[in-house]
Order: sequence, then C-alpha cells, then structure tokens
Amino acid sequence: MHCTETADPETAEPSSPPRPPLSLTSGRSSSSAIRDLLRITRSPGILSLAGGLPAPECLPTDRVRSAADRALSISGPCGPTALQYGPTEGIDALRETVAVGTLASPTLGRANQVVITTGSQQGLALVARVLVDPGTPVAVEDPVYLGARQVFAGAGAEIVGIPVDANGLDTDDLELRLRQGLRPSIVTCVPNFSNPSGACLPIARRLHLATLAQQYGFLIVEDDPYHALYFDDPPPPPIAQLAPDRTVTLGSASKVIAPGLRVGWLHAPEWLLQPIVRAKQTLDLHTPALTQLIVTEILNDAAFLEPHLESTRDRYERRARALHAAVSGFIDAAMPSGGMFLWGCAEVDTTATLDQAITGGVAYVPGDVFTVEDLTHRWLRLSFATLNEERLTEAAARLESAFAGIERPRPQVPDPSVGSHRPRVQ
Amino acid sequence: MHCTETADPETAEPSSPPRPPLSLTSGRSSSSAIRDLLRITRSPGILSLAGGLPAPECLPTDRVRSAADRALSISGPCGPTALQYGPTEGIDALRETVAVGTLASPTLGRANQVVITTGSQQGLALVARVLVDPGTPVAVEDPVYLGARQVFAGAGAEIVGIPVDANGLDTDDLELRLRQGLRPSIVTCVPNFSNPSGACLPIARRLHLATLAQQYGFLIVEDDPYHALYFDDPPPPPIAQLAPDRTVTLGSASKVIAPGLRVGWLHAPEWLLQPIVRAKQTLDLHTPALTQLIVTEILNDAAFLEPHLESTRDRYERRARALHAAVSGFIDAAMPSGGMFLWGCAEVDTTATLDQAITGGVAYVPGDVFTVEDLTHRWLRLSFATLNEERLTEAAARLESAFAGIERPRPQVPDPSVGSHRPRVQ
Repeated sequence: MHCTETADPETAEPSSPPRPPLSLTSGRSSSSAIRDLLRITRSPGILSLAGGLPAPECLPTDRVRSAADRALSISGPCGPTALQYGPTEGIDALRETVAVGTLASPTLGRANQVVITTGSQQGLALVARVLVDPGTPVAVEDPVYLGARQVFAGAGAEIVGIPVDANGLDTDDLELRLRQGLRPSIVTCVPNFSNPSGACLPIARRLHLATLAQQYGFLIVEDDPYHALYFDDPPPPPIAQLAPDRTVTLGSASKVIAPGLRVGWLHAPEWLLQPIVRAKQTLDLHTPALTQLIVTEILNDAAFLEPHLESTRDRYERRARALHAAVSGFIDAAMPSGGMFLWGCAEVDTTATLDQAITGGVAYVPGDVFTVEDLTHRWLRLSFATLNEERLTEAAARLESAFAGIERPRPQVPDPSVGSHRPRVQ
Repeated sequence: MHCTETADPETAEPSSPPRPPLSLTSGRSSSSAIRDLLRITRSPGILSLAGGLPAPECLPTDRVRSAADRALSISGPCGPTALQYGPTEGIDALRETVAVGTLASPTLGRANQVVITTGSQQGLALVARVLVDPGTPVAVEDPVYLGARQVFAGAGAEIVGIPVDANGLDTDDLELRLRQGLRPSIVTCVPNFSNPSGACLPIARRLHLATLAQQYGFLIVEDDPYHALYFDDPPPPPIAQLAPDRTVTLGSASKVIAPGLRVGWLHAPEWLLQPIVRAKQTLDLHTPALTQLIVTEILNDAAFLEPHLESTRDRYERRARALHAAVSGFIDAAMPSGGMFLWGCAEVDTTATLDQAITGGVAYVPGDVFTVEDLTHRWLRLSFATLNEERLTEAAARLESAFAGIERPRPQVPDPSVGSHRPRVQ
C-alpha cells in the first residue's frame, strides 16, 4: 500500500497523468517541529529560547580559518586531501583522534571502529538503516530527542517511551518492561545533559543499562553531543566502556567547535561496522574532507581547546543560572549540571500558549513535541545557550507575561543583533 | 524475515547473548566494488584507471583557500554563517546560483525548488527514500552507474535495466517495455557523458523520454555531474527543461570544483520538495555551511571559472585522446565527447583478467560490475581523468601485456607521485 496523497485522481488536474506514489517511509516522515519553529522565530524582534544553537560568541572563527588554511596544504597521493575523494570511514587521523579521546570527547576504543559521520544526526540515520525494519521495537527516552524519534519513526520502528526522571532514563522501568516481554532491538538515550530533559545518567544506571543490554540482547545507542558541556564535574564514563560489544556511541564537533561544519562520529562494535560503512556509501560516499581535516586539527590542539572549552562551559553555566533564576517564579525546573537546555513545568498548557508567547516576542518548544507516551502539556524546553544573560532575562519576562495572559506590545525597534535569517554572501 | 547472519546461534560464542538482527535494507546492501577496488589499487606502483577521481592538477586549492577565508567572514543573525546551524534546504545564495545556472551547470528553474545535498550521491539517496518501497520498479541504464544501483537496490527496488548504445539510454527499448506493461516509478540516467558508458543522450531521445514520462507517469532522475566536462560542444538542454513536473535533476560541484567538499544539489518538482526536505532533515540536518559558501563564491566567480573549466576540459580531452590511442590496438572503444570514462570491449574476460592486471601494475573496473541484465564479460571501464598522458600510455602498455597473458615484473622503484593512501595531517 502506498501513501498516494499526491497521486489522488480526484484532486489531480484532469490533464495531469498520474505521478509515482510516495514511499511508505515518506508517509511516515514528519517534519521537525523545532526546525519549523526556528524558521518562524528567526524573524526580527523575537527572542528565541526554542533552538539548540551554540552561542555565537563560542564559534571559533579565527581558529577554523587557520585550520582550513593548513588543511588545504595537506597532500595525499591524488592531490590535496581536503579536496579529493576520501575513504567512506573517514580520514584516519580523525578516526584515531576520536578513538583515543580528546579534551572535548571521551576515550572510545579503537580507531578501526570509528566512522566519521556528517553530523551525529547521520549516525542515528545509519543505525536505523542497518537495524530497523517496519515494526522493529525501539525504546527511547520519554521525553525524547526529536532527531532520534524522526529517524526511527521514519524507518517504521515501533517506538516505546521509557520515562525519564531527574537522573535520566529510568532503567528500573526499562527492566520492568523487559520482564513483561518488551524486546527492543535498540535502546537509545542521551546520557549526558539530555535533550530535552537536561538530565545526566549516573554510573549506577549506566551499569544497569549495560547489564540489561547483555541480558536481553539489545543495542544501546549512546548519543553524546553534550559530553564536554559540564558545569562542575565531567560526566561518568561512556556506556561504550561498560558494554563495548553492545553500544554505538555517537559524538559530534557541533557543540564544541561548530555545527556548521557537520562533523560527527560513531564508534560501533565490530559486527556492525561493515553494514554501517556500506550504508554510508549510499548516503553521501563520505563526509567532506575539508571539514574533517579542520576538526582533526582543532581537536588535537589542546592549547586552544582547553581555554575554549573552559570559556564555553563558563558562559553556558552563567546563562543557565540567569535563565533558571529569571523563570523560577513561574516555571518549576531543576538547574541542569551541563548542556544547553532547561526543562521545566509551568502552570499553563504550553502548546496552547505558544502563539501568544510568539506574539509577545519570545519562543520556546512546548513539551508535547518531545512526548512519546507521558503527557507533558505543561512542560517546555528552554535553551539557554544562544542568548546572553540580558536577553535571557528579557525573554523570561516576556514569557511570564505571555503565561499570565498579559498582552505586551512587541518592541517597536527591531533588535539590532537579530536580522534577516537569509545568509548574506558578500 | 531478517538477515540474521550475525545473530546465528550456531556460530555465536556459547556465552554471547543474542544480538539484534540486521535490517532488510542492510541485507540488501552491497559494498561498492569500485570503492573496494580503490582501496587495493592505491598501493604504490599501481597505475589505476579504476577510479573516477578528478585530475589532481584540476583541484583549485588556492581558489578554495581564498573562498574559505571569505566564507568565514560572512555573518548571519546567530554568528558566522559558515559555522552555525543552517536551513535544511541549503543556503539561499547557493540555491539561487544553482537555479539560475552557472558556467559549470545549466539553468534549472526556481531557487525554491533547489535543495543543496551532501554530494549528488545524497540526491539519489533522497529520491530513493521518498519514492521507493520494496518491490517498486526502477528502470536504470544498463550498464548502470553503481552509486544509483546501490541506492535503489538498497531500498528494495526491483531494478530493470534498459540497454545503452552509443547515444545513451535506448528510449525505443524503454517504450517497448512500457508498452509490454513495465510501470517504473523512476527512470534514472546520466544523460551527459555517462558513467560508465561515456554516452551523451541526444535531444531527440531527451524529448522522447520526457514524452514517455508524461504518458506513463514515471519520474525521470537526471543525474548530471559531468555536464561541464564536454570536449567540443556543450550538451543538449537538461531534461528538466523538457519535463519540469516529471524530472529531478542532480548536479554536483565534485567534478568542476572538488569532490572533497561534498557539495551537490537537486532540482525537484514542487510536489516532491517537502518529502525530500523532510528526508534530508533525518539524514544530516543540512549540508556543511562552510563548504556551501565556498562553492557559492566559486560558482559565481566567472573570471576564475571560465579559464578553470576550459583548462579542465582541455586536460581531460588530451588524456582521453592519449588513452584512446594507446588502447586502440586491443580494446574497441568509442572516443567519448566528454566526461571522465572510456567504455570499451576487449578480447578477454575482464573480470577473470583483473588480478593479473593488478599484478602487472594496472587497475580498471570490469564491465560485469555495471551490468544489470546484459552480460558484459569482455567490457571494461577506464578512467582517463586522474593520470597524465605519460602514465596513461604506460598503464595501457601494462594492460595490453596483462590481456595478452604476458607477465611483466612490476616496476621496482615505487612511483614517486603514488604514496600511501593514508592522509597525513601535519
């Protein structure tokens, strides 16, 4: 059976011949509510807490510029490495860097088990491609990272939500479901400063999850883009170290260097490598060589990376504290110990109130968007990463007014730092 | 039913619990014979005619360097455009550039129908994702571009080969099959200087194909990476101009600027855009912003592009003539009118002879690899793009010896320009 909405003879022009039907995958695909929301909220005058964009101040333009310059001087057997076709697995120097671990990412294991991906979103797409058929059960955090849900739902997975509490994925609940007969192929989570919950999974739960994976034969997908964004202590060791034959770890340069480079990586058990590399061949042959080389150089530059990460963490912690304090009167949220998000509960239906908030000049993501099974009408996700403290405080004030039902006129003068979202090429 | 080779209890260690089964997609995926072959043939001393790598001399390192430098100066509302998250459809300036057409690519239509892709391989992956279910008939050229076959076969398509002659896809044969009841969702071809056949589809066949698409309701995938690599006259207008509501055109910066940047694009009818953009969201969110901006600047720099393309065409034509002349005594091949490949027929079984050729210091791709239905044991694909004339002539001599069954010792001194294929980061 096909999703034939575009080929419906009733609605087609009389002269139009039929069109080929869309695939089942396409029929299952929904757009990311967040990416759609981002489009709206990039208009002038809106203070957006909706996105997960790194602080502009943390994007290391000069360091990328010098890294690009050097990358273009590296030569391989068939010309400049940055410009020629390269191996699907990624550039060896980057695979080795990622395997060994850096100031920005944990030790993962062996370089030959690392595949460089076009952002960690592609890591999710690859895992879904090699392990998910229509009907395959996949357990996710509830609330869930949207990019993961989109990928697995698109592949036809039967998505099962496992509740998240202040310590992340509730592994006791997972065990209960497993005992009751749930047999997921994959259990996926963001163990460190999760999106959207902000929670960090303690070592005891990591061990519990690793044991359950061994016992019930599922794969753990450890999606770890926020690893280096801790405020106090670094997070516990990666699950990959506890269940190496059962875990695919996804990492990313997006939150520690720059998302626009789209460089991520995955570390997979050996039995999954060949299927993953074959799948990546069909998706994009390989991740751009230029951006791989840029990330390789920066991840290996400890003298740059240490102060860069320290100032990024400081900035995010200050912003988190400012936003947490500013919303504490009307949103119940735990202060996160890292990452980019505040996950909180308000006195209003956050989906119903969104339009009014946008009219009042502030945007957020309603909790419903992240919901699998638990209803979260009163929850919302606020990003503290993108705006500075002054703007966060103003955004919180606008939010409070919107939630109180008070209409405030939007600022007449557009915010000077908020322009058109069209990139300008000069 | 799953492909359970890795979970077979018979072969698993007694203590290993079961692993999740691989997906059906994964079971259908084969590795690219060419990418596997490339791995072997990058060893010292081998002259490879197997790859489709652009001439190292044509990769514009200095121009990319200055474009990268300028790209990093462009600012958007949330910091440097090259480093921040961007829209899934791609950067507007590049979409507009591609729609209008450049010295390197034809006019395609409207910017809002353009999606920037991570190489044109991703364009194929997106089309397969939104239009192919297991069992969907897809008609391809026979011999076929491997990347297309991998993608469509991986999606479970029922692949049907349509013969190719000196003028490309035989549209009369296609019409015959359509009259006999074939109902493909997609007909895909490389209209200009095809891979592997080198053929260029004349305007009459383009019109015929466009008419058939209207009549039988299929989508044409016009995969056009070699557009600008003509030796004499530019190719006929793109099929997209003849059947705009029926054609997805794929383009690429890989052959005219650099493949390592992984920037491609697609132009699709409006009814396919939303499904394609949603699919791309799940694959990699967006193509790297830095490489998009680099390509935007270079495609808009006519003062650079005109002489660059002219010298690229000259170089490839000289190489094509040299290789054609050097193999003419033992391989029957038409001199192509553009592109990167010579497709020829020898007196030997080219699959059986490959090992001996590699032992003799030369590599090629046997025709069998590209075969869908027609047997092509004696055919082979030779790339003339990567090596210079002197090396092409030497490669042809080695090939002749291998085909004649004469064992020649491999050169003792490794070729100075052919080093380890491991990229070196300094």
